[in-house]
Amino acid sequence: MTHPLSVAVAGLGTVGGGVLKLLRDNADVVAAHAGRPIAVTAVSARDRTRDRGVSLSGLRWYEDPVALASDPAVDVVVELIGGADGPARELVQAALAAGKPVVTANKAMLAVHGAALAHEAEERHVPLAFEAAVAGGIPAIKALREGLAANRVLRIAGILNGTCNYILTQMRERGREFAEVLADAQKLGYAEADPSFDIDGVDAAHKLAILAALAFGRPVAFDAVHVEGIRNVSALDIAFAGELGYRIKLLGIARRSDSGIEARVHPCMVRASAPIARVDGVFNAVVAEGDFVGRVMLEGRGAGAGPTASAVVADLIDIARDRLTPVWGVGSAELSNAPSVPMSEHIGAYYLRLMVVDRPGVIADVTAVLRDLGISLESMLQRGRAPGEAVPVVLVTHETQEAAMREALSRIAALSAVLEAPTLIRIEPE
Amino acid sequence: MTHPLSVAVAGLGTVGGGVLKLLRDNADVVAAHAGRPIAVTAVSARDRTRDRGVSLSGLRWYEDPVALASDPAVDVVVELIGGADGPARELVQAALAAGKPVVTANKAMLAVHGAALAHEAEERHVPLAFEAAVAGGIPAIKALREGLAANRVLRIAGILNGTCNYILTQMRERGREFAEVLADAQKLGYAEADPSFDIDGVDAAHKLAILAALAFGRPVAFDAVHVEGIRNVSALDIAFAGELGYRIKLLGIARRSDSGIEARVHPCMVRASAPIARVDGVFNAVVAEGDFVGRVMLEGRGAGAGPTASAVVADLIDIARDRLTPVWGVGSAELSNAPSVPMSEHIGAYYLRLMVVDRPGVIADVTAVLRDLGISLESMLQRGRAPGEAVPVVLVTHETQEAAMREALSRIAALSAVLEAPTLIRIEPE
Repeated sequence: MTHPLSVAVAGLGTVGGGVLKLLRDNADVVAAHAGRPIAVTAVSARDRTRDRGVSLSGLRWYEDPVALASDPAVDVVVELIGGADGPARELVQAALAAGKPVVTANKAMLAVHGAALAHEAEERHVPLAFEAAVAGGIPAIKALREGLAANRVLRIAGILNGTCNYILTQMRERGREFAEVLADAQKLGYAEADPSFDIDGVDAAHKLAILAALAFGRPVAFDAVHVEGIRNVSALDIAFAGELGYRIKLLGIARRSDSGIEARVHPCMVRASAPIARVDGVFNAVVAEGDFVGRVMLEGRGAGAGPTASAVVADLIDIARDRLTPVWGVGSAELSNAPSVPMSEHIGAYYLRLMVVDRPGVIADVTAVLRDLGISLESMLQRGRAPGEAVPVVLVTHETQEAAMREALSRIAALSAVLEAPTLIRIEPE
Repeated sequence: MTHPLSVAVAGLGTVGGGVLKLLRDNADVVAAHAGRPIAVTAVSARDRTRDRGVSLSGLRWYEDPVALASDPAVDVVVELIGGADGPARELVQAALAAGKPVVTANKAMLAVHGAALAHEAEERHVPLAFEAAVAGGIPAIKALREGLAANRVLRIAGILNGTCNYILTQMRERGREFAEVLADAQKLGYAEADPSFDIDGVDAAHKLAILAALAFGRPVAFDAVHVEGIRNVSALDIAFAGELGYRIKLLGIARRSDSGIEARVHPCMVRASAPIARVDGVFNAVVAEGDFVGRVMLEGRGAGAGPTASAVVADLIDIARDRLTPVWGVGSAELSNAPSVPMSEHIGAYYLRLMVVDRPGVIADVTAVLRDLGISLESMLQRGRAPGEAVPVVLVTHETQEAAMREALSRIAALSAVLEAPTLIRIEPE
């Protein structure tokens, strides 16, 4: 067991550079935990000349990442190219076909093609590991798949996108609007030039689809995830949330009910006292509720070279030690066929914020719509008075069905006194 | 791989009953994750007739727990008897000697005899698993030993005793004194009739010794842990802590420095905004800081039948899947020989609260002691005025060495204007 584990790394961006650096700087720690040295011997990247702060001398260089899979001196392939399709997927398929374990940080690929890739890995008895795909350095995959494996998981919820959490935190702390904070975040490198993948919730949905597959032992079902981003969250709603004792977070939530599995990513109001409400800035968190363990929360850095490299190398150590776990925690024959519950059947409380003309009868019209649809109110907030002008009105409902709430929203939006598209934010119970 | 894993359980108290219940209620989930059924086939406990809410019919019953180890139909022994020595240790030694994997929740035994037991387990290539020994249902052992295995751990800190955390939380929330809250906690079953094991910090120190061995890859060194409990924390100090922006928590902390490993359990002041400061009530938390991953925090229920059973069965699933990890994360040949740093060499800031006679010159005398020992003050608080009467004075120091602070404390206590033994609480940086 003392011959080194020979690793090929495809993709030498931030994370790939971090993996090389970690394996160099912590070679002793890694070898002690892995029971043998782990050495990168081959790499592939777009730009051979870029300075990554780590020497590439002595490593075999491949122009074509897919060729790494057929290098006979490579034991394990680390895929850090990204993207659901293209060379990333080709490389992973080629490596699995060659019987080589794969470590990947590619959440898009796993969310979209995870079922097929897991099948391939299982057929060939080859590990497919992806701790780095969700919540960066937080060992969330291991915790769910192994640490909480004795539990029937009832619910998982996570802050899965650091960019969104940073933006929402800044909006709250500084009372600023989304667009301003986004622009600043882009300058600071916390948001991409094209931020839509993050701020529209797609990245969080990829990660939630993976977590839900693990938590509920069912095939990954990205298409069934309901996705909304944070573009429409306003400073006004964040202020109202504070007044009501809530914070607004972009959460990914998956829940088991009698009708199946509900999975959704959207801005949520959570009680300010809830542990997840206090995870701020670029930090990520994953909460899992099991029938025996109760609630467990894991919190840490969800991105960046160091945390992600930590997760990638943890997977390599598992592989070096021959610690094998089925891709989704259970073998494919044991996967559940619990159906996905459509968002229209979601039951929960809602925060609704309207801008209305301040004149008699408006609230009566709005509440009549709710009454007609059987939606009952828990509270109402109206701030300021400005006869004949626009004023915000906040309504908080008791639990009701999403379908009824959607219908109410469209009827309310059609009222002449309602001046803008109403804002609807779901309230997530603790 | 479809023949069941046959388990013997020694000790059928709260946790043992929980394990039986979990393996019955979640048999499907467990079998799917383990790749085969996990079935208890033999048990041993003091009282055969007690109602545990789970049927024992069909299970082989042993009066002598140690006999479980030699039952040829037993694959794995689960030790839930407790106590560092006696039958628990005999059973574990017998099981390892018989080549049978052991799962235990026994932190006292691991803290005191862990080095020898680990050696025995390694010699015989037999797993010795103990997720349930620290922080109950939180997969802290797995996170440290596998999830963060690529990191050089710099520091770990934990709320490791739910009884103490419950008492300190109640004291803060209700402004009550220790003795009153303890009495209530005993009535509610949150504290034992003889509470000293918990409130004097011994239980937390056992767990810290285990975590430190894992975090720093060194032999478990319980005797080197500095231990103080919470008996001397007063409502007044909790109120002052709040005023200064801190909360008082009983933490177990282990830190790597140039001189070695420092490990200590004592009441700490932590910034009220720190994530660990907000872990309240019976909840536990473990924070680990790695050189690549940064800070990761895990939070959940640290005790109780369900959470502890969740951890025990997670270990059984690892064993059923043949996922093997050295007891301390690295083989014994790789264990570090970093020395333990004595508490007298600890460097940190201190909160010092005195009850002094309110008369001119007292503060001058106190601060002269500090000056003479080279201890510099960050702030001072004096509340209320009562000429000639006792008033509290709070001093917060800059970083200084424990030995100097101890000397200052004894000189200050000897001043005639100082009426009670001063209270000293260490301030823990984030």
